[in-house]
Amino acid sequence: MKLLIVGGVAGGASAAARARRLAEDASIVLFERGPDVSFANCGLPYYVGGEIAERNKLLVVTPEVLRSRFRLDVRVRSSVEAIDRSAKKVRVRDLASGREYEEAYDKLILAPGAAPLRPPIPGIDLPGVFTLRSLQDVDHIKGRVDHGVKRAVVVGAGFIGLELVENFVRRGIAVTVVELQDQVLPPFDKEMTTPLAEHLATKGVSLLLGQSAEAFEQGPNDLTVVLTSGIRLTAQLVVLGVGVRPENKLAIDAGLQVGLRGGIRVNEHLQTNDPDIYAVGDAIEVKDFVTGKPTQVPLAGPANRQGRIAADHIFGRAARYRGTQGTAIVRVFDLTAAMTGASEKVLRRASRPYRKVYVHPTNHAGYYPGAEAMTIKLLFDPETGRVLGAQAVGGAGVDKRIDVLAMAIQAGMTVFNLEESELAYSPQYGSAKDPINMAGFVAAGLLRGDHPQVDVEVVLNDATEQRPFLVDVRTPQEFSRGHIPGAVNIPLDELRSRLEELPKGKKIAAYCHVGQRGYLATRILLQAGFPAINIGGGYKTYQLLARE
Amino acid sequence: MKLLIVGGVAGGASAAARARRLAEDASIVLFERGPDVSFANCGLPYYVGGEIAERNKLLVVTPEVLRSRFRLDVRVRSSVEAIDRSAKKVRVRDLASGREYEEAYDKLILAPGAAPLRPPIPGIDLPGVFTLRSLQDVDHIKGRVDHGVKRAVVVGAGFIGLELVENFVRRGIAVTVVELQDQVLPPFDKEMTTPLAEHLATKGVSLLLGQSAEAFEQGPNDLTVVLTSGIRLTAQLVVLGVGVRPENKLAIDAGLQVGLRGGIRVNEHLQTNDPDIYAVGDAIEVKDFVTGKPTQVPLAGPANRQGRIAADHIFGRAARYRGTQGTAIVRVFDLTAAMTGASEKVLRRASRPYRKVYVHPTNHAGYYPGAEAMTIKLLFDPETGRVLGAQAVGGAGVDKRIDVLAMAIQAGMTVFNLEESELAYSPQYGSAKDPINMAGFVAAGLLRGDHPQVDVEVVLNDATEQRPFLVDVRTPQEFSRGHIPGAVNIPLDELRSRLEELPKGKKIAAYCHVGQRGYLATRILLQAGFPAINIGGGYKTYQLLARE
Repeated sequence: MKLLIVGGVAGGASAAARARRLAEDASIVLFERGPDVSFANCGLPYYVGGEIAERNKLLVVTPEVLRSRFRLDVRVRSSVEAIDRSAKKVRVRDLASGREYEEAYDKLILAPGAAPLRPPIPGIDLPGVFTLRSLQDVDHIKGRVDHGVKRAVVVGAGFIGLELVENFVRRGIAVTVVELQDQVLPPFDKEMTTPLAEHLATKGVSLLLGQSAEAFEQGPNDLTVVLTSGIRLTAQLVVLGVGVRPENKLAIDAGLQVGLRGGIRVNEHLQTNDPDIYAVGDAIEVKDFVTGKPTQVPLAGPANRQGRIAADHIFGRAARYRGTQGTAIVRVFDLTAAMTGASEKVLRRASRPYRKVYVHPTNHAGYYPGAEAMTIKLLFDPETGRVLGAQAVGGAGVDKRIDVLAMAIQAGMTVFNLEESELAYSPQYGSAKDPINMAGFVAAGLLRGDHPQVDVEVVLNDATEQRPFLVDVRTPQEFSRGHIPGAVNIPLDELRSRLEELPKGKKIAAYCHVGQRGYLATRILLQAGFPAINIGGGYKTYQLLARE
Repeated sequence: MKLLIVGGVAGGASAAARARRLAEDASIVLFERGPDVSFANCGLPYYVGGEIAERNKLLVVTPEVLRSRFRLDVRVRSSVEAIDRSAKKVRVRDLASGREYEEAYDKLILAPGAAPLRPPIPGIDLPGVFTLRSLQDVDHIKGRVDHGVKRAVVVGAGFIGLELVENFVRRGIAVTVVELQDQVLPPFDKEMTTPLAEHLATKGVSLLLGQSAEAFEQGPNDLTVVLTSGIRLTAQLVVLGVGVRPENKLAIDAGLQVGLRGGIRVNEHLQTNDPDIYAVGDAIEVKDFVTGKPTQVPLAGPANRQGRIAADHIFGRAARYRGTQGTAIVRVFDLTAAMTGASEKVLRRASRPYRKVYVHPTNHAGYYPGAEAMTIKLLFDPETGRVLGAQAVGGAGVDKRIDVLAMAIQAGMTVFNLEESELAYSPQYGSAKDPINMAGFVAAGLLRGDHPQVDVEVVLNDATEQRPFLVDVRTPQEFSRGHIPGAVNIPLDELRSRLEELPKGKKIAAYCHVGQRGYLATRILLQAGFPAINIGGGYKTYQLLARE
């Protein structure tokens, strides 16, 4: 068996190592266009910022280790230029010497990754305008920063963009972020990113949403970024993080199929339309685990798993890739944002019915010092209660709750299961009713009809005269600090004795700060014969949505 | 509907609040023998230590809030002395006045909790010998500590015992811990507690295992604790944390069934053998979710859920309690220990077939600073791979992995599912191959036969001549710092070229530090025709077991 692998970072390196474990006698050649294999892409921004102090920490596995330990024929700075499918061989170009040669294969795995987009706008190729993919890119960016950069512009507020922002600020650089969409972190639903945008402002970061760069100009000392709005930003460094496109040219030239957005098409065994050619990692189109629809999700975890599965299938195992949930996480200064499964916008786009709840718990028991707040948004099937997606933003413990919900999605669990989850509780780590249980209670209560809820935006979007009668059941102090316009304040503990103040025959929407007292009020009102609903997630959720 | 609830802490308070949400017009009376309802039991040790500075933080909900918000008839310092099942009424004693009276019920929920064991040994009732259950207990203990305690003895190294130890040390007290069993934290498997015992020693705590107190003696200034071994310990304060027994007298007197260990027997709706009487919380016998066998698990999370389910069933819902997984966590100074599902000893006792693996990952990517080590033990079904239990000990991230595995157990997931779990990865939070994936890879590899493994103790227990030929595939430096007696050192990267040094026809057991290189060596040896196995979890696991 002769196995060739194109691309030596996450998916390619995983496939090669797995292949060797399965087959001592296979001939395995790993081609990598760059000089490094298996480096820590996700660590690059932290090397710029200095949290990762030594460059060699980024080299997870060196070509030497792959050679000695896995007996892999590793060829760096080697570009695979063409595939001859009928002859089952590839044409390789040695970038150092320029020499070209052919290499035959029995099986071929394509793991070329995805390239940062560089939109064709004037000045895109100026020396101070960077993208970040490789160690060489990071060397250039860090070199500039070390040399002294006062102002930087980051175009694109996605994961890599925001990580770079944090690291530039760490280096004392004034940063402006420009994002075409009207939110940061476009994979998240907008309202969940509001706290992040506000947090960036507290760290002195300028955020320009709904704008894009239309030109870069080189002045005597500085670069100018010209935005579509006419704003001109001056900087010594510009980094573009506006997305990636699958490296699909080799595949397309060989007649392999790609999807609408360019990802190489594969079946559940990760075979392309040529069964001897597999493809893995950021270059491929995957099945969205929740919606079942094709999508592209450039993430290291799935790439590693795909590499493993492709090698398994090549060596005779019935391995299948179950699809990608899109579990992702990012630290933005003191906050963490994480998600798993489908977002509300993805569900809407897929015309998939759903309901949602918001909860605003703390990461551990409130009676123990240091509890940190978070907001969890849970999306679920309106009939079965199956968990479809979750997003969380806040302090400590966000990663844990999203991982727990990632397991729930993988297992096909419902919100009723979340009510019954038994998670670790002592005061440093959780609560007797964990945030996951709370999200389950609220969602299950909604589906069972115990706890009729209306989404804040429905109330906001109703014409005033059609709006329900709004009762704010918080304390007068809380009410005076801000409330939904038009609401009447009747504190929860007075509600039973003040029912005569409520209109008859009109829908009543109760709310409190996070939803808990609003829920109690709803139960009281329903049982007193009022057509009551709770405004899900309370004033805190209202604030998220109203600030949009 | 008139509902009486006996006990106002976790299960009782949850049941009462849930009942009110379901039934505005029900008459609900909550009897509590002590002066406090719904207080934070799990916070008590931290109030002694001072991390929780204000006593009122421990009062999660006051009787006043239960009255005003939930319209509950809360009667503290009220002891329910007897149940007349045929007349459906209880006899109550007002502990303040001594007055007794009867109260009728339609439904009754028993949530009396469990009392700390006070074994009948001489001196057990001396004023300096305490147990910890209530706020009054903690007031007494804290009062002594505030007054000045140099030395304390904690009898019992369970969860509460070790939490007290940490808090006493925080207060500058020299602490000796006495534990009857040969390990700390008896619900865990012994080898997983070895790092905790060593950690206690580094904090200056004296740990006496396999010993118990046989008398307490009052001297002029100090107490003396006399151990069965003859050791005499001097202290100004003794706390017993040697377990609890269900408060079952009321139930037994009323002819309600209890289990072998005294827990009140209930069905899946939490009804006792009298369908109008429910029981919840630490007083009941529950079904072990994994083994299906009856057990007693005094934990706040399950108690809260049970209270909710009992109320649901009383008010006409088809609520069922699924059993208890026993998910538990404790911080021991700088380490965290957590578990979920069945331990190895519980599986052995239940004659339930299982396999196990150990992994020793870090909580996040090693290339990012601050990664902390942990050991995870995973127990699973040898046929199906279903996850049966997990334990973890280490630094940051232990709680997350146990919660993730708690979800896996709840959902009936297998180790093959863990290979495919998609958890949140960026360098601060995890790895592209999360510890959960790693545990899944090792366990699934074992079941598939890719990765034959032998448990360390099997090698240790074999007579020397029957032992496999031991190959340590670590570096000479690692080997020289310690290895399994009798092992030969052939570093992994030299193994392929030194195969002739291995005996023919004899079983070969390879190992490295944590299992990864041992696995690679096993794959190489198997494919070279040697009957090879990997010593699961490597030298690090050997050390855990050999130190026992």
